[in-house]
Amino acid sequence: MACFQDDLTVATKHRREIVLITDRVEDIVKKSGVESGICLVFAKHTTCAVTINEAADPTVRQDMLAAFEFISPYLKEYRHMEGNSPAHVLTSLVGPSEVIPVRDGKLALGTWQGIYLCEFDGPRTRRVCVQVLG
Amino acid sequence: MACFQDDLTVATKHRREIVLITDRVEDIVKKSGVESGICLVFAKHTTCAVTINEAADPTVRQDMLAAFEFISPYLKEYRHMEGNSPAHVLTSLVGPSEVIPVRDGKLALGTWQGIYLCEFDGPRTRRVCVQVLG
Amino acid sequence: MACFQDDLTVATKHRREIVLITDRVEDIVKKSGVESGICLVFAKHTTCAVTINEAADPTVRQDMLAAFEFISPYLKEYRHMEGNSPAHVLTSLVGPSEVIPVRDGKLALGTWQGIYLCEFDGPRTRRVCVQVLG
Repeated sequence: MACFQDDLTVATKHRREIVLITDRVEDIVKKSGVESGICLVFAKHTTCAVTINEAADPTVRQDMLAAFEFISPYLKEYRHMEGNSPAHVLTSLVGPSEVIPVRDGKLALGTWQGIYLCEFDGPRTRRVCVQVLG
Repeated sequence: MACFQDDLTVATKHRREIVLITDRVEDIVKKSGVESGICLVFAKHTTCAVTINEAADPTVRQDMLAAFEFISPYLKEYRHMEGNSPAHVLTSLVGPSEVIPVRDGKLALGTWQGIYLCEFDGPRTRRVCVQVLG
Repeated sequence: MACFQDDLTVATKHRREIVLITDRVEDIVKKSGVESGICLVFAKHTTCAVTINEAADPTVRQDMLAAFEFISPYLKEYRHMEGNSPAHVLTSLVGPSEVIPVRDGKLALGTWQGIYLCEFDGPRTRRVCVQVLG
């Protein structure tokens, strides 16, 4: 069993944005040569997250952004001076990483699944670690 | 180190439902022969999730379903035509997978922990990938 | 490839509390001798979670605790007799574990990232499994 590692850089353009990165992760899995194992996709930040959701209809991404605003509003109790506490909260709720099965040398995603970087406090340049074990 | 892989099929019966799958995952871990490592349980869908929570008292599951309705209601801004945006949102909040330690050839779960498939848009037949590495 | 495993015990002091455990996890990674791989940090409980968030400014942790109260209040529908349903719900939203890349024998965390145990129903003594694969 081997561990292959690589990085992605994602430049976001808006304060809140959901960016599809499936193809870029898949390229790393191919490069790794791993046939059977797992792939960890990990964002090295505290105001952005990695998630898996529908990649076909772009309205799903728009609805997710609307939901994120609803779920984590700016509360009057917040004390962190940078004003981005809702972004920190969403990062812990959605989580900084996903682990995906690797089978037959490919990501074993379902038909509708895509991998997303969720920007909660952009625009920024984000680094994402990918580890492929197998 | 080896990677053993298998699948589960879970047929859900209701629109929203939390189904215990611990024993079925444990069977795969036993079959794998892995003594020490990790087990990835990954749902290949965008409107259901995998979580770990209390398996003893069934009222916890009922309360979780009530909480999910409260946390992710149907918002008037939603544009996705299928009407299941709250299910997509809950999938990203709860997450499509869990990773569990394997020790002494078994899932190293705590006393009260069970593994659940959370159906948010059923009834449907769901596929769950299990990868055991160690 | 090897799998190294160890445990942490975390004694929490309050009902709700966010405790930094990065250094203790890093010590286990060093002890493991793993140069390249992944580290699973898994809480064996159903009313506490593991997350990654900002470790520099302590007001972020205070704001996260405020947000957790807002996101998962006590609902009148709750039936679980122990009265800690919001703690169970938060555990499934934040999740019982994190998986972190290991590179050059160290946790490959971003500049501001720290690993936290989130206590939702303390004070209690919590056990955390750490598995290092690589």
